[in-house]
Amino acid sequence: MRTHELVLAWIEKQLSDGHLVLGGRLPAERALAEKLEVSRTSVREAIRILEAMGVVRAGVGSGKDAGTIVIAEPGTALGSALRLHVATQHLPVADIVQTRILLESWAVSRARADAPELLEAGRLLDRMDASTAVDDFLALDVAFHLALAEAAGNAVVSTIMGSLREAIEGYAAALTLNLPDWDSTADRLRREHRAILAAVNHHDGGRAAELVAAHIEGYYREAGLGQDPAETTA
Amino acid sequence: MRTHELVLAWIEKQLSDGHLVLGGRLPAERALAEKLEVSRTSVREAIRILEAMGVVRAGVGSGKDAGTIVIAEPGTALGSALRLHVATQHLPVADIVQTRILLESWAVSRARADAPELLEAGRLLDRMDASTAVDDFLALDVAFHLALAEAAGNAVVSTIMGSLREAIEGYAAALTLNLPDWDSTADRLRREHRAILAAVNHHDGGRAAELVAAHIEGYYREAGLGQDPAETTA
Repeated sequence: MRTHELVLAWIEKQLSDGHLVLGGRLPAERALAEKLEVSRTSVREAIRILEAMGVVRAGVGSGKDAGTIVIAEPGTALGSALRLHVATQHLPVADIVQTRILLESWAVSRARADAPELLEAGRLLDRMDASTAVDDFLALDVAFHLALAEAAGNAVVSTIMGSLREAIEGYAAALTLNLPDWDSTADRLRREHRAILAAVNHHDGGRAAELVAAHIEGYYREAGLGQDPAETTA
Repeated sequence: MRTHELVLAWIEKQLSDGHLVLGGRLPAERALAEKLEVSRTSVREAIRILEAMGVVRAGVGSGKDAGTIVIAEPGTALGSALRLHVATQHLPVADIVQTRILLESWAVSRARADAPELLEAGRLLDRMDASTAVDDFLALDVAFHLALAEAAGNAVVSTIMGSLREAIEGYAAALTLNLPDWDSTADRLRREHRAILAAVNHHDGGRAAELVAAHIEGYYREAGLGQDPAETTA
């Protein structure tokens, strides 16, 4: 095991033993290096990796408030990893889209009609009605889909779902900006969102799943990233 | 953007532009540092992160064959990230199990009966018949489930599925080793695997999906990591 991996293993053990908890602070770089008898460079490399994994936020500032804090942002980490592997062309964009559809259909079919996230989803749709800037609209769109997914109560599904979207966000956004008629696309998306939320609120999980699948497929197809069934099943 | 992030962004751009491809070699640390006008430390930090993401394998040895190679091992990276977030208790084990069931049920219901991975799956079951050591058996078990998932032809689903399993492998393995009667557990798992593969081979995706869901639930339940429906839907 290389020295920075020793540091990683030690920190992971501290986390799983509960000695280091969410919001807690890692020992200072120098102290950790001395304790584990490794170089400060190795400690810093381990911390960079944990940052990339969304497990810590490295210290900024100095004095009493400085330090590296334990956080829980797996979505960003998974999104970056998936995005990098889409870039190497190891993971096809069509497979990402298909997986997103699978997870999101499942989530809306399991969403609990009394989940507070559904109220939030409704408020997001009201804000989208008033939103005209593309960037704004897309940010609200992400938040709406995430709220829907969270209403199913599975943190792993909503995390992965968010990261799949993030992994191909750059591709979709670039193409979305080139659409000939953004206003009519936005109107269609608004109507589809309302219909999905209505189905969930009426306890019709099957219908909600169908609608969300068609909605996501349509979005990526229009953005030029649609899945080709022949390709994804070949 | 911090300097090591500049290096990451540059490498990601090289990958997505196709200037750097699978099996290709990154510029040497010193050359990259000079080109991007950053320190060698920053280059090394970026490479450590890419290693952790399963995007490169850092150079070993020296001379003509040394260097950092582009690879594609997203499963390991996603597995480590998920495992770390299970350790911080941000992602519940029950949600990991439920997601694994979702993805694997989908995969067997979509597995193509003529996929070469199914022949491989059958060969793995023959080897499991002859396997008595727990470690051996479990390694073949992982390979069997992965072969089944790959038969559905979606690289993202099979990658995530493998990483979910890896994320809780440590917990499951520790408990599996404590089982009172490993031999009878192994016999049950063997029978269940045969039944799942038979359903897939007989084009009965619905049946295969039911069987695989019951099989995975039973496995984790016996290992003491079963999902509690009240907990996962609460």
